[in-house]
Amino acid sequence: MIRACLTALALILPPAVQAQDASALLGPAESRGTGDLGVVIERASGSVLVVDQSERAALCRVEGLGDLSHASLTFSPDERFAYVFGRDGGLSKVDILACRLENRVIQAGNAIGGAISDDGRLVAVSNYEPGGVKVFDADTLAQVADVPMGSKTVGLADAPGSRFVVATWDSGEVWVLDHSADPAKPLVTRIKGIGANPYDALMTADGRTYIVGLFGEKGLTTLDLWQDPPQPRRILPDYGRDQPDLPVYKMPHLQGWTLAGASYALPAVGLHQVLWADAATGAETARTEVAGQPVFVTARPDGRELWVNFATPDNGTVQVIDALTRQVKRTLHPGAGILHMEFTPRGHEVWLSARDDDRVVIHDARTYEKLGEIEARAPSGIFFTARAHRTGL
Amino acid sequence: MIRACLTALALILPPAVQAQDASALLGPAESRGTGDLGVVIERASGSVLVVDQSERAALCRVEGLGDLSHASLTFSPDERFAYVFGRDGGLSKVDILACRLENRVIQAGNAIGGAISDDGRLVAVSNYEPGGVKVFDADTLAQVADVPMGSKTVGLADAPGSRFVVATWDSGEVWVLDHSADPAKPLVTRIKGIGANPYDALMTADGRTYIVGLFGEKGLTTLDLWQDPPQPRRILPDYGRDQPDLPVYKMPHLQGWTLAGASYALPAVGLHQVLWADAATGAETARTEVAGQPVFVTARPDGRELWVNFATPDNGTVQVIDALTRQVKRTLHPGAGILHMEFTPRGHEVWLSARDDDRVVIHDARTYEKLGEIEARAPSGIFFTARAHRTGL
Repeated sequence: MIRACLTALALILPPAVQAQDASALLGPAESRGTGDLGVVIERASGSVLVVDQSERAALCRVEGLGDLSHASLTFSPDERFAYVFGRDGGLSKVDILACRLENRVIQAGNAIGGAISDDGRLVAVSNYEPGGVKVFDADTLAQVADVPMGSKTVGLADAPGSRFVVATWDSGEVWVLDHSADPAKPLVTRIKGIGANPYDALMTADGRTYIVGLFGEKGLTTLDLWQDPPQPRRILPDYGRDQPDLPVYKMPHLQGWTLAGASYALPAVGLHQVLWADAATGAETARTEVAGQPVFVTARPDGRELWVNFATPDNGTVQVIDALTRQVKRTLHPGAGILHMEFTPRGHEVWLSARDDDRVVIHDARTYEKLGEIEARAPSGIFFTARAHRTGL
Repeated sequence: MIRACLTALALILPPAVQAQDASALLGPAESRGTGDLGVVIERASGSVLVVDQSERAALCRVEGLGDLSHASLTFSPDERFAYVFGRDGGLSKVDILACRLENRVIQAGNAIGGAISDDGRLVAVSNYEPGGVKVFDADTLAQVADVPMGSKTVGLADAPGSRFVVATWDSGEVWVLDHSADPAKPLVTRIKGIGANPYDALMTADGRTYIVGLFGEKGLTTLDLWQDPPQPRRILPDYGRDQPDLPVYKMPHLQGWTLAGASYALPAVGLHQVLWADAATGAETARTEVAGQPVFVTARPDGRELWVNFATPDNGTVQVIDALTRQVKRTLHPGAGILHMEFTPRGHEVWLSARDDDRVVIHDARTYEKLGEIEARAPSGIFFTARAHRTGL
């Protein structure tokens, strides 16, 4: 009875803000579940921080990952290994349970991101230099396939059926690589006429729709991968930089798009607006005025609210938009240089990287209350292991 | 170079069917990722089998869980612990990493399922006897709250914001329990007028829509939990047993519903049909003739195909429906007494429990080829740990 009361009391009391422990590393725990772990990119120091969502704490740091100034990562299906894609062409495999750099190869001169196949057996990397896509054995990092495309490649994503999809900057194409029959010799489907200079792309969570952002012209191009062969379809024909006098501080990532209900919410380019588009037709339906040039428009996992961060000079501000009213309902100032936001898988918390404060800050995603913070070196991307189970990342 | 070739060769060769190893238990591995684990209910022997998706093998068995004849389970956010809800009112906490029964309480006389809160701190169980819902500390299993409702309860699901939602069989209500302010004293919202004798319910993956099946009348009732207070809305007014001469072998679980694109696909009651309903309006739009009385209509995670199993006497058959054409494209006979189907999180494989063969069989979810099998004692539900990251289970 006393125990039950103490338990109830402990549950009632708000969790203590852990600022005082922010610099402590709990150390690796060899035996533990990995479903609530995460990895934070420390962009300036070539290191990653392994974090524990449940403890709201850092476990350990892994160093020696090279140039992480524009890095991303993906997880193995068992949520034990992180594959980190560095800007310098480095592909690093980190054991987040043992807190160890398991393997590392320099696979290209200049790389821009990667993906892991749905069966977890292949890791693909898209390259600026020499261009094309290289595919590696997820276990050993041995090269399995090399697919030159005569172009820089962007927006690499996995698709169901051991496939990878990528756009080519120089030739305006999308290539679908199907590794299901022979990992070393993918069947290639080339889709031409995507548009001038794709600079990024996005795969929907079901792996069906691939959306390509264009730098060389306005609008975006979508492909329905259920079609055979997929036919390019232009959406949001006015999307892009439409006021040449306003400087664009940062070309928004298409990963900053989000699907809330039947609408996409996406950052306008160079404007202080979030755009809304009908997901079925691709037509613009509304605009929300916000505090700066949006970078990421990220839906809380339930889709009820969207959190927006901004390019400099407004990157200390975060705004929350109500998905029903499409109005800003809250403006927060969680730290300096907010580069990224990651929700816990079921959306009760949001973790934000405050690069210029050298901290990750943790907020309740419903009350907006600050719950804790973790010391980190110039943190950028935050990646929780639940991503291992999602398509198109 | 040789290594790369061998790797490529290993990837080319089809994975060996593991039938010869089906009886082997690999044993617990204390240090490993938990993202690719799963738990299989062995309904007749009060035990669960811990399985490894990547190895297509069983790791170990945990016994002493009581009556699992109508059992379900849910996972802790770290994907280490399974909370198993037995028919006899037993709530068991299993450490799937150590392969150990961590804790067990008999919390009621007759229970029907449970859920875990989005923050992972509370586990709720819905009871037939004595009725109502009890809520426990996920860590210790100490009771935190007891909410009598004067009724048997069904269809318990978690919702965002430390909430649980449940329907009452005797009084035709839905109760929303909000534990966010005080876990021990949930704020209760009672919604009356749901309909006669709810027998099961379903929460959509975003935690927004709660769908209640009615035994005492036709049709289903939905609640939009974004409304305050939610207003009952009747959909599919003809849904239910509509041909009294045809015996209903099994009242389909609403968990057998699936959302494929903008449509629900659901098992007809007592008919050899799968029904299609527009998700926005709830109106029936089509029917697909199938091989028996459907039990589960489960979408592959990409939504492109739906797999259907059947009530006796057709429970050795599984059919695959194309979501675009809504036609059966494949009929399989994977084993005797197929009770449940679980897809790997990104949908490359499907695992099926063949109760009367004492096996779990594993098929490629695209080629339909059999990839392996695992010996199990009268297996029923198969639960992969990726469920830890999903709302409404």
